[in-house]
Amino acid sequence: MASFDVDPYAELYARRTGGMSASEVRALFAVAARPEVVSFAGGMPFVQALPREQVLELLEGVLMDRADVALQYGGGQGSPALRERLVMLMAEEGTSADPEEVVVTTGAQQALDLVGKVLIDPGDLIAVEAPSYVGALSAFSAYEPRFLQIELDEEGMVVEQLEEALLRGERPKFVYTVPTFHNPAGVTMSLRRREQLVALCREAHVPIVEDNPYGLLRFEGEALPTLRSMDPRNVIYLGTVSKVFAPGVRVGWVLAEPGVLQRVVLAKEAADLCGSNLTMLLTERYLAADAWRANLALLVETYRRRRDVMLATLAEHFPADATWTRPQGGFYVWVRLPPYLDARALLAAAVERRVAYVPGTAFYPDGRGADAMRLAFCYPTEDRIAEGVRRLGELLAEEEELYRAMSG
Amino acid sequence: MASFDVDPYAELYARRTGGMSASEVRALFAVAARPEVVSFAGGMPFVQALPREQVLELLEGVLMDRADVALQYGGGQGSPALRERLVMLMAEEGTSADPEEVVVTTGAQQALDLVGKVLIDPGDLIAVEAPSYVGALSAFSAYEPRFLQIELDEEGMVVEQLEEALLRGERPKFVYTVPTFHNPAGVTMSLRRREQLVALCREAHVPIVEDNPYGLLRFEGEALPTLRSMDPRNVIYLGTVSKVFAPGVRVGWVLAEPGVLQRVVLAKEAADLCGSNLTMLLTERYLAADAWRANLALLVETYRRRRDVMLATLAEHFPADATWTRPQGGFYVWVRLPPYLDARALLAAAVERRVAYVPGTAFYPDGRGADAMRLAFCYPTEDRIAEGVRRLGELLAEEEELYRAMSG
Repeated sequence: MASFDVDPYAELYARRTGGMSASEVRALFAVAARPEVVSFAGGMPFVQALPREQVLELLEGVLMDRADVALQYGGGQGSPALRERLVMLMAEEGTSADPEEVVVTTGAQQALDLVGKVLIDPGDLIAVEAPSYVGALSAFSAYEPRFLQIELDEEGMVVEQLEEALLRGERPKFVYTVPTFHNPAGVTMSLRRREQLVALCREAHVPIVEDNPYGLLRFEGEALPTLRSMDPRNVIYLGTVSKVFAPGVRVGWVLAEPGVLQRVVLAKEAADLCGSNLTMLLTERYLAADAWRANLALLVETYRRRRDVMLATLAEHFPADATWTRPQGGFYVWVRLPPYLDARALLAAAVERRVAYVPGTAFYPDGRGADAMRLAFCYPTEDRIAEGVRRLGELLAEEEELYRAMSG
Repeated sequence: MASFDVDPYAELYARRTGGMSASEVRALFAVAARPEVVSFAGGMPFVQALPREQVLELLEGVLMDRADVALQYGGGQGSPALRERLVMLMAEEGTSADPEEVVVTTGAQQALDLVGKVLIDPGDLIAVEAPSYVGALSAFSAYEPRFLQIELDEEGMVVEQLEEALLRGERPKFVYTVPTFHNPAGVTMSLRRREQLVALCREAHVPIVEDNPYGLLRFEGEALPTLRSMDPRNVIYLGTVSKVFAPGVRVGWVLAEPGVLQRVVLAKEAADLCGSNLTMLLTERYLAADAWRANLALLVETYRRRRDVMLATLAEHFPADATWTRPQGGFYVWVRLPPYLDARALLAAAVERRVAYVPGTAFYPDGRGADAMRLAFCYPTEDRIAEGVRRLGELLAEEEELYRAMSG
């Protein structure tokens, strides 16, 4: 950006802003948001499935009964009534909690920021999956940690790698993981790996930060226990209603033991005083009524069908030597391309063909991932998914042909 | 808290959490929130003045026209339409701006946090008023600065003190000020001081962070130019709709030059991805309709009368050797007690007598201020204000009598 060249305060910025560069794919995303582009890029929930009359009715109730509270400042921890509802939501996955152990945040993204803020000193080591959720990497990066990257396979985090690192003497402040329907990889940590990870971290006295935005979006197979339910004392759990209700209310939460929790509440108050009472009351009422279960079932069914279309059309249109994950839930398929295809370099050409994705490089702190792409199937309709995968497949086939012609 | 003693992760917390202790007055505040207590403590706007039918009608419009947007993720900078309305709001005080130079935040508190995040490295010097807004001190403290405290008088910041510090070779990263209707001091920076400050900082190449939550709440006298309008290139301006509309929507903003602005947007995205589209759309529509001006006029008139009652009853009930400020707008009166009275020590006794305030110590990073109290007149009714000041005056009179008996 030209303006940066003449920024009179260039020398005043904090060191941490060095890690805050705008990604080079950002400019393309503006283009990718145009309606003619099939976007597999953003993880936007299909909020069109929510009946707006129902939401409006709930808002009417909030304004009629509680206007003075809804429009006023609230407490830093979030209202007790909402925290009770979030505890109920966690119980759906067998995670038991007390509302006193919960702090409401601005989506799970703020939960990541606040956990980073209370735990990370510059230079601290943080263990993350490779690849890892891009939002977690950027939230944590503001506190200038070093990253210990642990590979993923079809069973989730390869816990042996973490064990080896601990044996080498590495001392991560915490392990960050998305065990269920991983973002971006789409895989789910197996029960065996969960048991390994929980036991290892408890023994090594390293807390686990479990990020679970997608757990209730299971299409098939049996639910696995959350890490938090396996070791409440050693797991800081992050949740959000963005995927089971709506991102627009900006309600997420942290569930943690008292020492961590109290610091997160203080950090929350310093960061923004409190969340919106209006959207917290709306969320509380949404989760208190029965309709949320039917709405969620509709969302799960919609996403399941979209995943099916994506997997089927990938098999039909993608290069024979590409591989991809088969998620049992959530939003994402992770594609590995043959090494001669560069997902980052190809993005501009893809957007020109009216299809967008996120290159794998976004999900590694060390610049790896050019041979991978994250495809989100949550937002486009089935027809659009089929069309988008076809467009992308065509591009990849042409690139492959070009490569073979030049190297053969 | 007993739980801290057995916190298994006590050694894992980041150094910055050392500055995040829960204040000792926090526990009292829970008691102070009981309805029988007249609270001069919190700066809660009188949102009861807002017609709830009007707010509901706006929400109906948002849900009927824009439900898919309202419930979805938004952009990190905030919607262009809302930013245009915020620019209009700034124009009310003669501050001109372009919507492109604005980023919407979760109230002005998040603006403080993000400005601290992009500018402060540990050990950096920050110039603040003494006393200063407690929320700014806690937001900045997370980034571990040193504070250069500049005294206030009836004309606002004593700019000569800042000049002397600069001449001594002090290099603050920025100067933080609430020039208009200061929180907690209630004073307004004079035009002469504004000119001095702006010229000094421009010459010294030190940006000013101007926090202006109360500017439109003027009861009397002529509006003064904002610092931003006097030097757009060197002033980062923070605003909020909490006092002109409602805190419950959590809408504030930063207006800054491109270099700062782009970093604040990236920091915002790392901190919470985006604000609530639902409350942003509501705020946009509130400011687009005409009624906001009439509502604001009603608020100003209400606060003016409450201030008048507070000033009149202070003169009647407070010790002869106490002094206090006479705000021309905003929410706060700052009382200086005679040195033998300790506002912090007296708080518990005050709450027992069903009246609460914030001791001056909250507003200094160095523990000063025990001889001062902040009284907020924004929330209690006129009758309650008179009663609260009477209760407080009685307590102070008894303490004074006790002191004279013991020392005489």
